[in-house]
Amino acid sequence: MSESRATAPRQTVKRQKYPVGVLGATGSVGQRFVTLLADHPWFEIAALTGSERSVGRPYGEAVRWAQEAALPPEVASMEVLPTKAPLHTKAPLPCKLLFSALGSNVAKDAEVELATAGHTVVSNASSHRMGHDVPLIVPEVNPDHLALAEEQPWDGALFTNPNCSTIGLVMALKPLFDAFGLDAVHAVTLQAVSGAGLSGVPSMSIVDNLIPYIGGEEEKIESETQKILGRLEDGAIDPAPVTVSASVNRVPVIDGHTECVSVRLGRPASLEEVHEALASFTAAPQELGLPSAPERPILVTTEPDRPQPRLDRNAGRGMAATVGRLRPCPILDYKFVVLSHNTLRGAAGGALLVAELAVAKGLIS
Amino acid sequence: MSESRATAPRQTVKRQKYPVGVLGATGSVGQRFVTLLADHPWFEIAALTGSERSVGRPYGEAVRWAQEAALPPEVASMEVLPTKAPLHTKAPLPCKLLFSALGSNVAKDAEVELATAGHTVVSNASSHRMGHDVPLIVPEVNPDHLALAEEQPWDGALFTNPNCSTIGLVMALKPLFDAFGLDAVHAVTLQAVSGAGLSGVPSMSIVDNLIPYIGGEEEKIESETQKILGRLEDGAIDPAPVTVSASVNRVPVIDGHTECVSVRLGRPASLEEVHEALASFTAAPQELGLPSAPERPILVTTEPDRPQPRLDRNAGRGMAATVGRLRPCPILDYKFVVLSHNTLRGAAGGALLVAELAVAKGLIS
Amino acid sequence: MSESRATAPRQTVKRQKYPVGVLGATGSVGQRFVTLLADHPWFEIAALTGSERSVGRPYGEAVRWAQEAALPPEVASMEVLPTKAPLHTKAPLPCKLLFSALGSNVAKDAEVELATAGHTVVSNASSHRMGHDVPLIVPEVNPDHLALAEEQPWDGALFTNPNCSTIGLVMALKPLFDAFGLDAVHAVTLQAVSGAGLSGVPSMSIVDNLIPYIGGEEEKIESETQKILGRLEDGAIDPAPVTVSASVNRVPVIDGHTECVSVRLGRPASLEEVHEALASFTAAPQELGLPSAPERPILVTTEPDRPQPRLDRNAGRGMAATVGRLRPCPILDYKFVVLSHNTLRGAAGGALLVAELAVAKGLIS
Amino acid sequence: MSESRATAPRQTVKRQKYPVGVLGATGSVGQRFVTLLADHPWFEIAALTGSERSVGRPYGEAVRWAQEAALPPEVASMEVLPTKAPLHTKAPLPCKLLFSALGSNVAKDAEVELATAGHTVVSNASSHRMGHDVPLIVPEVNPDHLALAEEQPWDGALFTNPNCSTIGLVMALKPLFDAFGLDAVHAVTLQAVSGAGLSGVPSMSIVDNLIPYIGGEEEKIESETQKILGRLEDGAIDPAPVTVSASVNRVPVIDGHTECVSVRLGRPASLEEVHEALASFTAAPQELGLPSAPERPILVTTEPDRPQPRLDRNAGRGMAATVGRLRPCPILDYKFVVLSHNTLRGAAGGALLVAELAVAKGLIS
Repeated sequence: MSESRATAPRQTVKRQKYPVGVLGATGSVGQRFVTLLADHPWFEIAALTGSERSVGRPYGEAVRWAQEAALPPEVASMEVLPTKAPLHTKAPLPCKLLFSALGSNVAKDAEVELATAGHTVVSNASSHRMGHDVPLIVPEVNPDHLALAEEQPWDGALFTNPNCSTIGLVMALKPLFDAFGLDAVHAVTLQAVSGAGLSGVPSMSIVDNLIPYIGGEEEKIESETQKILGRLEDGAIDPAPVTVSASVNRVPVIDGHTECVSVRLGRPASLEEVHEALASFTAAPQELGLPSAPERPILVTTEPDRPQPRLDRNAGRGMAATVGRLRPCPILDYKFVVLSHNTLRGAAGGALLVAELAVAKGLIS
Repeated sequence: MSESRATAPRQTVKRQKYPVGVLGATGSVGQRFVTLLADHPWFEIAALTGSERSVGRPYGEAVRWAQEAALPPEVASMEVLPTKAPLHTKAPLPCKLLFSALGSNVAKDAEVELATAGHTVVSNASSHRMGHDVPLIVPEVNPDHLALAEEQPWDGALFTNPNCSTIGLVMALKPLFDAFGLDAVHAVTLQAVSGAGLSGVPSMSIVDNLIPYIGGEEEKIESETQKILGRLEDGAIDPAPVTVSASVNRVPVIDGHTECVSVRLGRPASLEEVHEALASFTAAPQELGLPSAPERPILVTTEPDRPQPRLDRNAGRGMAATVGRLRPCPILDYKFVVLSHNTLRGAAGGALLVAELAVAKGLIS
Repeated sequence: MSESRATAPRQTVKRQKYPVGVLGATGSVGQRFVTLLADHPWFEIAALTGSERSVGRPYGEAVRWAQEAALPPEVASMEVLPTKAPLHTKAPLPCKLLFSALGSNVAKDAEVELATAGHTVVSNASSHRMGHDVPLIVPEVNPDHLALAEEQPWDGALFTNPNCSTIGLVMALKPLFDAFGLDAVHAVTLQAVSGAGLSGVPSMSIVDNLIPYIGGEEEKIESETQKILGRLEDGAIDPAPVTVSASVNRVPVIDGHTECVSVRLGRPASLEEVHEALASFTAAPQELGLPSAPERPILVTTEPDRPQPRLDRNAGRGMAATVGRLRPCPILDYKFVVLSHNTLRGAAGGALLVAELAVAKGLIS
Repeated sequence: MSESRATAPRQTVKRQKYPVGVLGATGSVGQRFVTLLADHPWFEIAALTGSERSVGRPYGEAVRWAQEAALPPEVASMEVLPTKAPLHTKAPLPCKLLFSALGSNVAKDAEVELATAGHTVVSNASSHRMGHDVPLIVPEVNPDHLALAEEQPWDGALFTNPNCSTIGLVMALKPLFDAFGLDAVHAVTLQAVSGAGLSGVPSMSIVDNLIPYIGGEEEKIESETQKILGRLEDGAIDPAPVTVSASVNRVPVIDGHTECVSVRLGRPASLEEVHEALASFTAAPQELGLPSAPERPILVTTEPDRPQPRLDRNAGRGMAATVGRLRPCPILDYKFVVLSHNTLRGAAGGALLVAELAVAKGLIS
């Protein structure tokens, strides 16, 4: 049945794509959204919003474009709109679905305002992730949490995408959680500079250096992981009773977050079983054939020195997580390294997949 | 009494410095030895050895000098000798004390041969570190292990210096181990490229990248830590019953190994107690006033984003470890970040301090 | 007529691809050849050669694969052959066309031996580039020089590809040379580390550093530029009377050579004329529709701070040169920055384009 | 006689150091001033100014300290003052001499206001460098230009320090200019990120990348070089008739600007003569024994691959320029590479040397 739901929109969109908007389109994540939406089979860009400085200007002038892919001319000429409801667009159809690349300060009020006005917002901002009625979704991990949006008081809806480090982590944890249970997760991250935005990390801070700190990041990884692995029951999420300890580092890498993870499982399992659980993992986005879904969400490598960010971040067009170095941990049970692309899977691409899932599930029409 | 021993040699050396040799003097660690010995108050270079390619040539021609400090002319003109006993030197005194910067393959036999011939070898190579009668010394941590050398069958002696990642780790662990006991240590390292030698890590492997693997390194950190924290009893080391789990990464940093450490203590302790134990730590090298000893072996910082390799690696002239981000660990008890200079404290400087300790203890005459 | 020649092979290859070999296939450039040939419409890999260490092993085991694209399984299973004539292959057709990624030491004799045995070798090695009867080809610049091969004494033939820094430079110079003449060229390069091969530049040499020297590189740029812009007359190349001054630097960039170029033209020209000559440039590969040809060989940008290696190296699938910052030079006439991908256009991709040109011209059958 | 002038202040300062102020003390260059002044034999910090955000706070809290050397506690506790005249200090003596690390926007008016109020300002800002009555000084190159300040209408005086790229360049040019004359200078720079200040260059812009552009920099190098090499006559500077062409690049290096320079001399000279002119160069700061003067202003290296920023930037405690790769230029006469430390010699250290020169010349009392 989910199959038929999945194919339905694809047939529809051959006739007419969904007009969508990008909130905060001039920043780093906003540019990624624009790039990914440029050739999207289901969606087409109908509105771009920006800060006061940009409003009223053509997007191509307002943006400091820093993507390798060229800015599509039809997008470059679109006028940047203010981020407020109602969102006027020149699109023939109302632009119901919005992707938010807003900074958390702005996102806090703006996303509620837009959801109240009837928009469905899929947000990459952290402001509402932990909201009791806000689904925090990794489509391969907790697609059923989408239903939490029914608890929302707004005409529209708000879905969120986790922190860029949480995503790769929970993708690797999910098959272990399902197969063996999970008591504890110790994660040390080595995060790329792009995670901090275009000018987040000064070069003076990172050339021949690293920074063992990112404000608020450890708390996000710890609480988001518990929420995502939690159970939706009676209209609320019951966080998974998994103890999570995160330590974060910023390293001189452009894209790709690497995480050294140790886990204590809920029940004994052999190395082979753990390997197999990871390697055979597949989930809703693959079954539904969502356009942005990687063929396999987790790639397991047995090369001794992989994954590496420059070599593996683009696996599955930047949407797969690569797991390597699976081995016993003398303290917990097993340890491994997981790598995922932080601005593709970890931000714009991840949010896009959430929207595709919502469309396939019939939640966006 | 150790005090009087310590002052004795310093008075002596004012009249006459100890002639010392550097084995494998042309490599990265060898060059650091040469630099540190150039102005040493107790030691002076009397012999330099190298591989076949270098033997017979003036050191200044044989070496590809890559230190910031200039190569002293009197050293540059010394003829490179073969690494074999008896080590002929032109020094008026026999050159008894040798610093080994040999690769482990060569070190295995050569160091034994030289110790058999009566030399005291202080080695940075890994070959003999885990030998049952070979002291593996961090002067602030286990100075009493020097006595293990009495078990050695050679006319001379062999002392070793731990892996560059082990050193910073055990320096931070020692005060906790003494004050509270230590059950488990989980360490994830972010190691500088200099640790692999002058051409160990190709730039193609590390620019915009990191490598979550260094062959044999995790095993070394785990077993060396247990040996160093162990107890010397009846002529043998009883390894400390501390479970150690190490995960290593190579990152694009020139010098300075950073380690994200979580510990489970032997008994409950408050954050303040742990902080105090670290911050107040002082040990034999400080008490003996050894020339290469940092004023304080551990510097504790409360800056939220420190230590950082480029800013903190030279603390205590590269001989101190800097600890920061001390905080509770949701899984074990506490976590923190420790940073130390891998080619100073972690290699040549550390070995030099071992030799100074041995001299101060009257073990080298 | 070249048109008809060009279309002929494309029709042919739909039925049957040319079997080709890659000499020195395990190195950095060799791997690029393998990657580019994997999906090539005209060519298919029939033989891979390697050094003694690799011969007899499956390519997938012998190679230390370091490309982002996965190694095709059918290539991974091919046995590595020795680099010598006659080149035995298991292909149904004899493998006449060979791409050489050999180091220059090996290339010197091996390529002559293979050409003598009847192979057509397209080489990226520097050994024979300046040979009086060896065409040194950039397909957009001097396609007519292919005919120089008629002077060769061998049954087969040998074509060469210039130095990776020469290629981008002469691509930018060619339209100026044709339109205005060229008296002098002053080029300062900022070259990526991949140009030195997988382990050519140690990370210790380049993190937080640059090296203002690459052995022999300046001489190559100077002499190759004169040969490529020279005239083929009476079976010999008359070098172009252009004075070239090259200064080279290695910088911490993975891929993409940047060059700051000043030129003195043969006759006065306005900035607009120079811009137009560059921007409108098109040449034989574009006219012939060669599979590896970029749509436009030169992209001219007016962004004030472009080209930049990370953002522009993949322009035209890594086969176009990007020119920016065109402006008057107070000493010579004009200056600009040109950037090209050194391992695509500057090595394997460039050699592939030479072979495609030779096929389209009917020189390889 | 200049000798006696030079020794005079040193005798004086043994009794009492000059109280000095640092304008814009919280930024990158300001911090360098604070560090260099911490142990200065002639000067001591009596006032620190900052922007509105910092005024009234202790310097140690207002500053985001990013120097390797620790912030001296007595400086950390000083209250940050507003940058305006009259500059109230708690120093017993009036704080006449001010070092300006102000941004050019602020410097424009503030420096004039302070000079009008009687302060002697030595500025690193670019705002007034090209002012007709403002000395632009490199103490080794044009110490006599100090006298231009007599033309200034203010009670105090304003001296300036050139752009960080100009300094290294003119130091290398000066001996050639004096010995052989100089017609033309072609310079391509590879500049460190610290030149842009603490957050000037985002890491996203420079990891695995370079930027062939720095706004206004080429113009500064060209015009400042002519002014500095110019002649002071009748109370005005007659710029040197040297044609200068500069092309600038930002590269992923922390400190140290490298420049590839080609020169056309005024009269023929052999390579040996040029080498000798550079290697034997010495000037006023050396003769006067100024505290910050390097023993030799220019170090000439014959190593084939030097100077390199990480290895050579600290030569002469960061105050010397290192010249290497001297060789003929096929277009102009000779080419070479010059490297100097951009935040020491090129900013704070250079300005300090200007002040020392002014004191030694009796211009500051």
